[in-house]
Amino acid sequence: MLAAQYLGKETFRLAERTPLRPGPGEVRLDVAYVGICGTDLHIKHGAMDGRVSIPAVLGHEMSGTVAAVGEGVSGWSRGDRVTVMPLDWCGQCPACTAGHQHVCQNLVFVGIDSDGAMQQAWVVPERLLVRLPPGLGLRAGALAEPLAVAVHDVRRGAVAGGDRVLVVGGGPIGLLIGCVAIAAGAEVVVSEPDRFRRSVAARLGLRTIDPAAGDPRTTLDPWTGGAGVDVAFEVSGSVAGLAAATHALRVRGRLVVVAIHNQPVPVDLFRVFWRELELIGARVYERGDFERAVALLAEDAVPATELISAVEPLERVAEAFEALESGMGVVKVLIDCGASR
Amino acid sequence: MLAAQYLGKETFRLAERTPLRPGPGEVRLDVAYVGICGTDLHIKHGAMDGRVSIPAVLGHEMSGTVAAVGEGVSGWSRGDRVTVMPLDWCGQCPACTAGHQHVCQNLVFVGIDSDGAMQQAWVVPERLLVRLPPGLGLRAGALAEPLAVAVHDVRRGAVAGGDRVLVVGGGPIGLLIGCVAIAAGAEVVVSEPDRFRRSVAARLGLRTIDPAAGDPRTTLDPWTGGAGVDVAFEVSGSVAGLAAATHALRVRGRLVVVAIHNQPVPVDLFRVFWRELELIGARVYERGDFERAVALLAEDAVPATELISAVEPLERVAEAFEALESGMGVVKVLIDCGASR
Repeated sequence: MLAAQYLGKETFRLAERTPLRPGPGEVRLDVAYVGICGTDLHIKHGAMDGRVSIPAVLGHEMSGTVAAVGEGVSGWSRGDRVTVMPLDWCGQCPACTAGHQHVCQNLVFVGIDSDGAMQQAWVVPERLLVRLPPGLGLRAGALAEPLAVAVHDVRRGAVAGGDRVLVVGGGPIGLLIGCVAIAAGAEVVVSEPDRFRRSVAARLGLRTIDPAAGDPRTTLDPWTGGAGVDVAFEVSGSVAGLAAATHALRVRGRLVVVAIHNQPVPVDLFRVFWRELELIGARVYERGDFERAVALLAEDAVPATELISAVEPLERVAEAFEALESGMGVVKVLIDCGASR
Repeated sequence: MLAAQYLGKETFRLAERTPLRPGPGEVRLDVAYVGICGTDLHIKHGAMDGRVSIPAVLGHEMSGTVAAVGEGVSGWSRGDRVTVMPLDWCGQCPACTAGHQHVCQNLVFVGIDSDGAMQQAWVVPERLLVRLPPGLGLRAGALAEPLAVAVHDVRRGAVAGGDRVLVVGGGPIGLLIGCVAIAAGAEVVVSEPDRFRRSVAARLGLRTIDPAAGDPRTTLDPWTGGAGVDVAFEVSGSVAGLAAATHALRVRGRLVVVAIHNQPVPVDLFRVFWRELELIGARVYERGDFERAVALLAEDAVPATELISAVEPLERVAEAFEALESGMGVVKVLIDCGASR
């Protein structure tokens, strides 16, 4: 079988490997589709060479079918359609014993800290499998992981029906957050400077504003009666976006910090104090978020076809990364590993 | 009657005034004691000249007795011992109509936005009065306002019995937060570089660490089993204190932002994301917090005598400010306006 290996220095190669036998409690999957995440782009650019073991097989957004089961695996059979929740926790650390396994202090993020799905045959522990319901296609199934991030973010923000929600940043996660918030009964505005992304947001039924076109309050104030939004999501990773989200909130509003800021960034704590805001960190997802994401895809509450811009075969992994990086007209790029063919 | 007037440029003068007659719904108080707040120091140094109307009578931490009641005032009689909750809200703005009157968008903070208590006779709306129970002295009663801040902060932090709490900054509010957290059943450590303040904390029954003496984790890690504290209070107003509080928290820990940071300050949002922390703004107090503060003083859960370092007569208002500013051996300074004599 073929595996796409990241070699460092922005380079990938295809390697022929013998498929592994699944050990006790493991399954081997025939991989169908793998999405490329922003984190994968960071890895390609060397930003995480200290964390990944080169040569590395990337990929943590995927769908596939069960090809073989190891000893002691029950409840899964050859041909079952699945996705993988790529979090493997220790169960022992303070976070795990407090019930927050998804932010385990020794978390193995599968596809970053261990080999991922960009290969035709992938062996994973049974406990990470999540079943895809009948009627949910394998392409859409590959969106479960990023959608689970959005489900978790919306849950951390305690978005309720009737809430007015601002999403700052209309990349894949921002768009998915918008869709999940709509499904929760909220009204949503997405702030995004890129015209193409705004057009995708509009096709998803999301109202948009262009932050470069002027003070967002000219749109937000009439909408909220001058009170400010109930919940804001900072998904831009920019200081300006963070400030815009902070200043858009109503008294006691909630700001979910979704984007990763690798360096300490200036936060207007006076505003946090003055309006008694809450800044809420949100990282990955819990099992329930992942299952909810699969259900939302199955209900077509999140229209996957609008988000998948391109599908490239595994042999063209380098071109698939380049297509995503070009940004031009692209939301999500999937790699087709062949199990659906 | 005498009133201490702030004239700008760090200057006070004593002025003889005719006591006002209370209007409908108002009461006139004979003022007993007035505490000097850090905000009053900021005003003295001109930092709020754009907000106060000079000449201004400062003072929003007080105790006194009812001297006269205006038309329509019921439930209050001459001689009743009271303190004043110095917040007057509009009732109309989005914050008020959402039930968050204490952070009203048109809030009048009495003693800053209107004349305060540093005078012998003070007229206030009846609705701001809070009764002092029998047995609670007028000196201790003057601590109700800063203690209400601490009660509100602890409530915003959702401190529960058994929680491990770090208070960064051992000034008056930090010490009061420590006392309230203890009363809520928490274990508390106060981080404070000043030796005198640490000695006061110790007399209040609070464990202390000196942040200048080394990595606080050498104390905190054994205490929390390496997990981190449940709740941290940032009361230092310093970037280093903010960073220490952020890094001391357990997964899903809560950081209450108490100190006022007038400029955007660097926050480690990566840590907020990684540990799914919450940063919670807390401003002033609600009526219930104020009543709880009075009850805690009456129960002697907060030993007022340990906190009141000096009492100066109204005639020595300038010296009282200087005593507080010297910081040497001083926690709270009260001004004696004479009603208790």
